[in-house]
Amino acid sequence: MTEKEKMLMGEVYNACDEQLLIELNACKDRIQDYNNLRPTDFAARREMLQEILGACDEHVFINQPFYCDYGKNIRVGKRFFANFHFTVLDEAVVTIGDDVFVGPNVSIYTACHSTNPTERNTRQEWARPVTIGNNCWIGGSVTILPGVTIGHNTTIGAGSVVTCDIPDNVVAVGNPCKAVKRIDN
Amino acid sequence: MTEKEKMLMGEVYNACDEQLLIELNACKDRIQDYNNLRPTDFAARREMLQEILGACDEHVFINQPFYCDYGKNIRVGKRFFANFHFTVLDEAVVTIGDDVFVGPNVSIYTACHSTNPTERNTRQEWARPVTIGNNCWIGGSVTILPGVTIGHNTTIGAGSVVTCDIPDNVVAVGNPCKAVKRIDN
Amino acid sequence: MTEKEKMLMGEVYNACDEQLLIELNACKDRIQDYNNLRPTDFAARREMLQEILGACDEHVFINQPFYCDYGKNIRVGKRFFANFHFTVLDEAVVTIGDDVFVGPNVSIYTACHSTNPTERNTRQEWARPVTIGNNCWIGGSVTILPGVTIGHNTTIGAGSVVTCDIPDNVVAVGNPCKAVKRIDN
Repeated sequence: MTEKEKMLMGEVYNACDEQLLIELNACKDRIQDYNNLRPTDFAARREMLQEILGACDEHVFINQPFYCDYGKNIRVGKRFFANFHFTVLDEAVVTIGDDVFVGPNVSIYTACHSTNPTERNTRQEWARPVTIGNNCWIGGSVTILPGVTIGHNTTIGAGSVVTCDIPDNVVAVGNPCKAVKRIDN
Repeated sequence: MTEKEKMLMGEVYNACDEQLLIELNACKDRIQDYNNLRPTDFAARREMLQEILGACDEHVFINQPFYCDYGKNIRVGKRFFANFHFTVLDEAVVTIGDDVFVGPNVSIYTACHSTNPTERNTRQEWARPVTIGNNCWIGGSVTILPGVTIGHNTTIGAGSVVTCDIPDNVVAVGNPCKAVKRIDN
Repeated sequence: MTEKEKMLMGEVYNACDEQLLIELNACKDRIQDYNNLRPTDFAARREMLQEILGACDEHVFINQPFYCDYGKNIRVGKRFFANFHFTVLDEAVVTIGDDVFVGPNVSIYTACHSTNPTERNTRQEWARPVTIGNNCWIGGSVTILPGVTIGHNTTIGAGSVVTCDIPDNVVAVGNPCKAVKRIDN
């Protein structure tokens, strides 16, 4: 397997792999171009997002600035909206359903390091996918950690730190984020 | 009532209203221009802030980058200072008193969605005003939620998530943010 | 003592001092230039960081955007890496050891104001140094407060607010951040 294949399969991989760095760096330049587009140049913004992201529909809307590592590992559903300063470390696949609203300053992290410094300093890393269901609202300033799945129809309250899975049909808040209310649709 | 009038009065409004989108998008371009000004071009920065904000005095100072939705619904008092990356979703009016210091990476949100996905997906939204008194210090990385009032002379500790009202003359901290100390002036 | 000397020694100083403002403003322009560099122009980025920071080695890497107040009061060890949107208020010295990884959206604050508004409005301020040991991993969206020391080999979990010292060889998480696990190296 290539290092890229290992990365996407959740295996330990070498974060200094030349091919991965080429893709990572190309994405950084594209993201700078995206962030420098005129906000009201909607056609150019949509076109660039469709090129950057792994999957999206024609109604995708991400307010600038937007930051990600590869882009191609982010798959968003229909009518995706993210507000200012969405940050995604997409070493693993980030899958987001249809009709998801993401508030400002939300971060999704998939990249993992060993907490053992000797291991960490070898730059052997791994990544865990993040999945967000359909019809979710991720409030502003929310941080989502590697491996988390958020169920369908769920709302994450502003300022929450989501460290473990959150079920369908709930409002969840806090650090660490916990379900506090059931949503009857 | 127009959708804009409904929005500012706290009524449910249509977030896809054409007139609102025109104003929202015009603000996004102005904000990009503001953020691209040379930091030391103080005269141009002050002039642009006076044009963007609904009210401020000649001593207003907001470090770049700064993000907001309309600008005109933000009213700040005398000698207002906000540090890097101040984010304000000013669908409702945000009123900030005199002599307020805002640390870096502070967010003020007024926009509300239903937690019921069927309702949320209709793009019917509403907003709740945020009010900050005179002589407040909002620490770095603080998130302030819709409808919150923070009293005069109060300090909000760094990293707090302010989910409900905070009285005058206290230090308040945490997620959710709570008063922990009285300030004797 | 000059106001700058007082600031760096942790004494109360005048934040409106002309010489300090000259240095602060010059840094803001340099930082804008750094953030506008092409991400893949690695040589220019490294060269600018070596000019901005007080100390670093040739392997220093800080993803754009990066924000700081003086730059010269930030001293990082060998192979320093910080991801997107690292914010450092370096009124006091920020000392970071070798082989430290900093996740996205991390903030380090050293600047202090009185919680008494009458005192605060005089613009008399002070600052407390922040120290991070060797081989630390500071997770994404972490906020570190004035005066904090984080020990060697320690990991701070994503989304934490570090309000007091954290020892060597632990994993620490939460708001406020507390040690939850010992690391055996």
